[in-house]
Amino acid sequence: MEARKINEFEAGIRVEGFFMIKTVDCKITNSNNKKYLDFVLCDKTGEISAKLWELSEGEEEQYKSNTIIKVRGSILSWQNNLQLKIEKLRNAEASDDVRVEEFVPTAPFQPEEMFQRIKNYIDNMINEDIKNIVGIIFEQNKDKLNYYPAAKKNHHAIRSGLLYHIMTMLKAGDKLCEVYDFLNKDLLFAGVILHDMAKLYEMEANDLGIVNEYTIEGQLLGHITQGIKNIELVAESIGADKEVTMLLQHMVLSHHYEPEYGSPVKPMIAEAEMLHYLDIIDARMYDIKKVTRDTKAGDFSERLWSLDNRRIYKPMLHQ
Amino acid sequence: MEARKINEFEAGIRVEGFFMIKTVDCKITNSNNKKYLDFVLCDKTGEISAKLWELSEGEEEQYKSNTIIKVRGSILSWQNNLQLKIEKLRNAEASDDVRVEEFVPTAPFQPEEMFQRIKNYIDNMINEDIKNIVGIIFEQNKDKLNYYPAAKKNHHAIRSGLLYHIMTMLKAGDKLCEVYDFLNKDLLFAGVILHDMAKLYEMEANDLGIVNEYTIEGQLLGHITQGIKNIELVAESIGADKEVTMLLQHMVLSHHYEPEYGSPVKPMIAEAEMLHYLDIIDARMYDIKKVTRDTKAGDFSERLWSLDNRRIYKPMLHQ
Amino acid sequence: MEARKINEFEAGIRVEGFFMIKTVDCKITNSNNKKYLDFVLCDKTGEISAKLWELSEGEEEQYKSNTIIKVRGSILSWQNNLQLKIEKLRNAEASDDVRVEEFVPTAPFQPEEMFQRIKNYIDNMINEDIKNIVGIIFEQNKDKLNYYPAAKKNHHAIRSGLLYHIMTMLKAGDKLCEVYDFLNKDLLFAGVILHDMAKLYEMEANDLGIVNEYTIEGQLLGHITQGIKNIELVAESIGADKEVTMLLQHMVLSHHYEPEYGSPVKPMIAEAEMLHYLDIIDARMYDIKKVTRDTKAGDFSERLWSLDNRRIYKPMLHQ
Amino acid sequence: MEARKINEFEAGIRVEGFFMIKTVDCKITNSNNKKYLDFVLCDKTGEISAKLWELSEGEEEQYKSNTIIKVRGSILSWQNNLQLKIEKLRNAEASDDVRVEEFVPTAPFQPEEMFQRIKNYIDNMINEDIKNIVGIIFEQNKDKLNYYPAAKKNHHAIRSGLLYHIMTMLKAGDKLCEVYDFLNKDLLFAGVILHDMAKLYEMEANDLGIVNEYTIEGQLLGHITQGIKNIELVAESIGADKEVTMLLQHMVLSHHYEPEYGSPVKPMIAEAEMLHYLDIIDARMYDIKKVTRDTKAGDFSERLWSLDNRRIYKPMLHQ
Amino acid sequence: MEARKINEFEAGIRVEGFFMIKTVDCKITNSNNKKYLDFVLCDKTGEISAKLWELSEGEEEQYKSNTIIKVRGSILSWQNNLQLKIEKLRNAEASDDVRVEEFVPTAPFQPEEMFQRIKNYIDNMINEDIKNIVGIIFEQNKDKLNYYPAAKKNHHAIRSGLLYHIMTMLKAGDKLCEVYDFLNKDLLFAGVILHDMAKLYEMEANDLGIVNEYTIEGQLLGHITQGIKNIELVAESIGADKEVTMLLQHMVLSHHYEPEYGSPVKPMIAEAEMLHYLDIIDARMYDIKKVTRDTKAGDFSERLWSLDNRRIYKPMLHQ
Amino acid sequence: MEARKINEFEAGIRVEGFFMIKTVDCKITNSNNKKYLDFVLCDKTGEISAKLWELSEGEEEQYKSNTIIKVRGSILSWQNNLQLKIEKLRNAEASDDVRVEEFVPTAPFQPEEMFQRIKNYIDNMINEDIKNIVGIIFEQNKDKLNYYPAAKKNHHAIRSGLLYHIMTMLKAGDKLCEVYDFLNKDLLFAGVILHDMAKLYEMEANDLGIVNEYTIEGQLLGHITQGIKNIELVAESIGADKEVTMLLQHMVLSHHYEPEYGSPVKPMIAEAEMLHYLDIIDARMYDIKKVTRDTKAGDFSERLWSLDNRRIYKPMLHQ
Repeated sequence: MEARKINEFEAGIRVEGFFMIKTVDCKITNSNNKKYLDFVLCDKTGEISAKLWELSEGEEEQYKSNTIIKVRGSILSWQNNLQLKIEKLRNAEASDDVRVEEFVPTAPFQPEEMFQRIKNYIDNMINEDIKNIVGIIFEQNKDKLNYYPAAKKNHHAIRSGLLYHIMTMLKAGDKLCEVYDFLNKDLLFAGVILHDMAKLYEMEANDLGIVNEYTIEGQLLGHITQGIKNIELVAESIGADKEVTMLLQHMVLSHHYEPEYGSPVKPMIAEAEMLHYLDIIDARMYDIKKVTRDTKAGDFSERLWSLDNRRIYKPMLHQ
Repeated sequence: MEARKINEFEAGIRVEGFFMIKTVDCKITNSNNKKYLDFVLCDKTGEISAKLWELSEGEEEQYKSNTIIKVRGSILSWQNNLQLKIEKLRNAEASDDVRVEEFVPTAPFQPEEMFQRIKNYIDNMINEDIKNIVGIIFEQNKDKLNYYPAAKKNHHAIRSGLLYHIMTMLKAGDKLCEVYDFLNKDLLFAGVILHDMAKLYEMEANDLGIVNEYTIEGQLLGHITQGIKNIELVAESIGADKEVTMLLQHMVLSHHYEPEYGSPVKPMIAEAEMLHYLDIIDARMYDIKKVTRDTKAGDFSERLWSLDNRRIYKPMLHQ
Repeated sequence: MEARKINEFEAGIRVEGFFMIKTVDCKITNSNNKKYLDFVLCDKTGEISAKLWELSEGEEEQYKSNTIIKVRGSILSWQNNLQLKIEKLRNAEASDDVRVEEFVPTAPFQPEEMFQRIKNYIDNMINEDIKNIVGIIFEQNKDKLNYYPAAKKNHHAIRSGLLYHIMTMLKAGDKLCEVYDFLNKDLLFAGVILHDMAKLYEMEANDLGIVNEYTIEGQLLGHITQGIKNIELVAESIGADKEVTMLLQHMVLSHHYEPEYGSPVKPMIAEAEMLHYLDIIDARMYDIKKVTRDTKAGDFSERLWSLDNRRIYKPMLHQ
Repeated sequence: MEARKINEFEAGIRVEGFFMIKTVDCKITNSNNKKYLDFVLCDKTGEISAKLWELSEGEEEQYKSNTIIKVRGSILSWQNNLQLKIEKLRNAEASDDVRVEEFVPTAPFQPEEMFQRIKNYIDNMINEDIKNIVGIIFEQNKDKLNYYPAAKKNHHAIRSGLLYHIMTMLKAGDKLCEVYDFLNKDLLFAGVILHDMAKLYEMEANDLGIVNEYTIEGQLLGHITQGIKNIELVAESIGADKEVTMLLQHMVLSHHYEPEYGSPVKPMIAEAEMLHYLDIIDARMYDIKKVTRDTKAGDFSERLWSLDNRRIYKPMLHQ
Repeated sequence: MEARKINEFEAGIRVEGFFMIKTVDCKITNSNNKKYLDFVLCDKTGEISAKLWELSEGEEEQYKSNTIIKVRGSILSWQNNLQLKIEKLRNAEASDDVRVEEFVPTAPFQPEEMFQRIKNYIDNMINEDIKNIVGIIFEQNKDKLNYYPAAKKNHHAIRSGLLYHIMTMLKAGDKLCEVYDFLNKDLLFAGVILHDMAKLYEMEANDLGIVNEYTIEGQLLGHITQGIKNIELVAESIGADKEVTMLLQHMVLSHHYEPEYGSPVKPMIAEAEMLHYLDIIDARMYDIKKVTRDTKAGDFSERLWSLDNRRIYKPMLHQ
Repeated sequence: MEARKINEFEAGIRVEGFFMIKTVDCKITNSNNKKYLDFVLCDKTGEISAKLWELSEGEEEQYKSNTIIKVRGSILSWQNNLQLKIEKLRNAEASDDVRVEEFVPTAPFQPEEMFQRIKNYIDNMINEDIKNIVGIIFEQNKDKLNYYPAAKKNHHAIRSGLLYHIMTMLKAGDKLCEVYDFLNKDLLFAGVILHDMAKLYEMEANDLGIVNEYTIEGQLLGHITQGIKNIELVAESIGADKEVTMLLQHMVLSHHYEPEYGSPVKPMIAEAEMLHYLDIIDARMYDIKKVTRDTKAGDFSERLWSLDNRRIYKPMLHQ
């Protein structure tokens, strides 16, 4: 019996361990009309389809999404995919001492730490209106920022991913302001903090940082428009300077750069131009690092949709 | 001496009459360093370059844009364009009984009448939130609506053009609701009234309905985003239903249909889809009617940029 | 035993009723080399895969596409789709009093009524050449128009769908001519009636209005070119005015508007421009109405390919 | 006094010789209201703007487009372009023994010879329907083919250019049939002969092979649709085989290959595919040869619009 | 027991014969955890999935890709595809007298013959530098040219396909030089021979002409850049004329014509322009001939991806 | 008499000062056939057209491009542009103590300093092959790097602009490696130094850093392909590791990112991805800084072609 991670499974072995239930459905077999449970299980390393063919009375009600189970079973190959045939399972108990957070991919910093670092950037802002608008919006969203990812599937689609994305962009922006010193730091950092904030309202995420769907308003308006609305209300409420309000909204509006990616106008101030590149660099570096993590030197990674379906080569040189 | 309209001028004739000064500049001749006045004059039928070569002392200060002058002169051909060589001119006086409004292209209905007709559509709305939001915004903008055009250069770029565009779309929308009777009239008519309202804030127009430039906010955000911000503040102020607010904003957001024309989302409700087509049909019918006004049956019109540079054929049949 | 419509089926229930055979194939099981029948059954509400596992001698020859059978069986879930396991079946008999037309989606008006309404528009035409060309072509195609759909899969892909599409466009066109009164009704209505007429030659449809394939000429030339050829022959045969012929052909040629949708030229007369928008509005309204029929208020419909893969939101407001 | 061709003119020289009037307009000077004549003159090598500043009584009526004049004058540089200042001119007389055909660019073969060569291809066709359709259409257009160019401005825009284009494509097609011997020569050669035939109806050309404008039908339908209409009438009149008619129309319809260049369908038979490439190769070879005629080895030619604005390099190697 | 080719298989028959193993995998059944062998078998006419359900001890190691086996079994239909259920099989033996080359699609000429014909073109070149560069590169690659295909999946994806593609293009190029006689044959033929030569380094092919993958350098640079590098080294090594080197590299660089197909510059010499069309014509004629081989007159072929997903019609006329 | 810079000129003033001759042509007036000199003059702030109407004998030979003259004259307005009417001029003399370098826009650092800084990055490289290849190529091009701009018209089109662009990118790259610390600095810095190096061979620039034209090879191959060739020869000469060579070439090949901008492949290693963004950020920051230099707070700059024709807004906030 082996305690492997999902990405180490192979056909023919038997396994035992704790996994998180991503989804679970009760279905009926075609051949003999019997009920069975159809799971998708995951850990930090990946996910796998799993079947429980023999149900005891009432067992179908016992297992829930986003909880941990202990499982024993064997790995089969079914139509070129691995599948886990469950022999035995039970819900995790307090005494097992497993935490659901350990089963979902998470940012490499604690939310509290990231929160504090971003706060420091806000505290150092000079322009009072910018500082207030950003400060208010940041505080309003503190709770959700703890666990929200930055996307449903692409870059930073991990627990606390949005916070991590903001913090890394702030670091990189700070560095580049040393080279391009005519940039206004207040504006640039405000743009970084606000640019994706309305993703908290565009997507519905649970506290594991998993997005199940987009909200209705998210679909009808999108996070760029939602973000602008929010800035409007906050700026109005504090009687902020009109130009400041407009510049912050312009940065949010233009940060996707191309109309077909959702920005009806292109950046027309230096800080909006830089914001766009900070965003895309951080996304690309995240994706490249992630997709090559398990690639051997001298090989190509798998294709990644968010990298225009490219495969990334890992040089021998890097060894 | 002939009292022709500008579109009747031809090389070699002499003319006399009232014209509006569109622009006037004092320049210096290359050959002998003498000052002269370089005008663009217009009436309802078109515009022409005009030169006053001999200036009396102080005369260069006497003529202003958007005022009427009386002119006598002769028409020359200069590099394939007609030009008016001014022999005599003076500013129009009260006793001349000419009104500047008669020299700029204007909608075929009085603003008051159009205002009233649109008001009727609002009064008949059933949903209270829609009625209030549209009613408030319509009243807020009453003054500017009197004279604002719907565009700087394209369709309905005439005095009171925006009102005229709204009124005609409402008529057409009303008719099509008889055929497609599942449409919600409140939503559709609200969309028609609000869709271009923020053009009043995107463009700077004088009270002749002539746009000289776009506002700063108009360039950094655009009338679609400006319109959404305005709906947000008004809806917030009356505590309107969230869905109503979102639907009105969605209609404004999607009415250009394609991202490259400024709409980051496509219509996702029936009324938004119809709004888009009402808008484009009204623009196209306006442009086609205008560009073929002076075309002879059996001929093509000139090319019109806003019709994708097409020329329109005027059938013999139509005679 | 329940007499449900197909769109009411769910896994686990047993059903009994009449259905139309859309397709039927005799296949051999992998496991034991036995023959079985693989059906697709449909009614007005949808379609479902159905299997008859036990065949009696000669039974495989008894069931034909586009006929009605009476079936008893149970509904299973197979790879996330519902499937009907047939226990008992027979062909419908005269005494069952079921009509095949009731099993295929059909226009909401009788062909005769629609035929008459369109005929009225033709009778009211003033220009004799237009009236004759349209009249002749309409009469030539009377039989096929009874049942032809307007498309293989998209909008108006229902029995008598082409007639319905023409009639609705005529209504909408008539309404808009009240607003845009400079349009020539003869031309516009002729364009509406002729624009898709050659779909009768582009597609092969049975008398249930189901298209199985495109004709060879349909693929090599397409309905736009086929329609122009037909107008050419009819116009030549009656010695019609050259301009009239050319204008009718221009409207057919340009009605898809964009080269990539099959129109090598854009509309260059007002009526062709309007024809395009009448066509697209009618298609879009049809699709939106259809795709949201079963959507609950506050939800999105499924995606529809012919709506650029959009989902349509059904507002709570509409309740 | 020098008898140079237009492409040998340079600022400062004086010239004398015969030239063709391409256009002539009577204009009025800006400075002193005097009439002058504004010419564009040409010979086989190029064209030049020319002015006659001093007019004798009635002289403005004496010179007509597309006739030959004898001119003496000097060459000036005006705003970076050369200009001919006319000192003396008269219309060419019979005794001058100059022929207008010598002043326009012309195909390098006599029309009669090209006509005969193409006729041979038709005579050798095996399929009677193809032979008849092509033969009839070719004969119908014999007169215009004598002088029509293949285009208004691009490749083969020379007198008899269409005939020359057809003949060269037939030669190249014949050669390639030796390599790709599964091609049906009747179809391919018919496609070559018919593909641009309706340019005779799309454009208005004078008997010098100069196109002044497109016809109304040419603009509303285009030569591809016009060509298909013509094939339809001829095929109908001789009761040709339906497939033959359809294939010939398919080749005409698809020969521009891309929708945005006017072909709503792509080639779906081998001969249509080859026809497209024969057409484009002949156009490109013609343009490259022409644009590099006066280029020195080791230099680039000027840019040519019909070559996607490319400049062509003339290798040293070619010397 | 029937000795059919794979493209003659149908459900229900039993077959016996020799086939090549394209791939073979040992898998485990879902139902009872037993091992089975999952093959893809092929002959010159096509390929089929085959299963060996009962394995004797150690049998799973006996069968290898790209070798020949003798098989007996029956043909089933599984999810609309044919499948071969193996009853008996053994590896081919010397005494069977079957050659693996007979089981893969191959060019219709012997490599030696094609090699000699291409050599003749090189021998006849006049420019010494061109002759040397092409000669050296051709000799360097002689071994791989014997069996390399011209592509992984598209046109000429057959054994010796690259040689065949080069030879046919040379023939066609030679023919067209008779019509367009200003072309430099040395350049054109050199371009033909070199244009795809680096595909030998871009793809990894076995000696059956089957490409399994692209090389790392092939993915990071592509055959166009690889080809240019190779010309650079060879030209440098013989001290070739700079212009000659540059022209050969330009032809390779531009032969895909469009940036999105890998050519950053368009052809700027006549021979590069012609090279592009020779390449595409040969690819298209190959594909059309191949895809219509088994099509009946009056029918359409299946869709071919490399023909932009078109189906090709086979005229009745061709019979 | 005023000693203004060119960007301070206005119609009506008289000026005196030193200017550089950008171009000079001798032309002939239209009216009286007299020679005159037509100059374009420049200083660091801009350029202006200037005319010398009265020439003394032989004066036309005295003035040369890229030299300094002393000029006195007056500023006129001619067709909306300013023009300098020269009254008096002479060539600058040694005693004037003016240096031509002061009249052309130049990088803000001395070449020697930039050279040294870049050298330091090379000296710190760890991988010997990368260090050698980059070192050799950098030394080979030392002379040209002194004065070459990075482009003909766009960003860094100034004297020593290429060096300045490289140095700034190295700084920014160094900073970002602190945030994205998995990047290989050797590779990234090598990519920065080599990415545009072949612009030295693509463009012909004089020692003022002014590009007059592209080289023949520059047009037929482009700097990306030229750069790869150069790396190939140097790597071959030192027997460098194959992977290193390939990676450096891949970075050069992919740095324009999109095929339509000249990169046939997209970045497939992390360092190539970052290289692209360093390049575009440095170009954009340069352009935005330059175009807004003279813009007043609260205004938009002029449009800049290399910024997709955007105008840049200069916030009031920045004051």
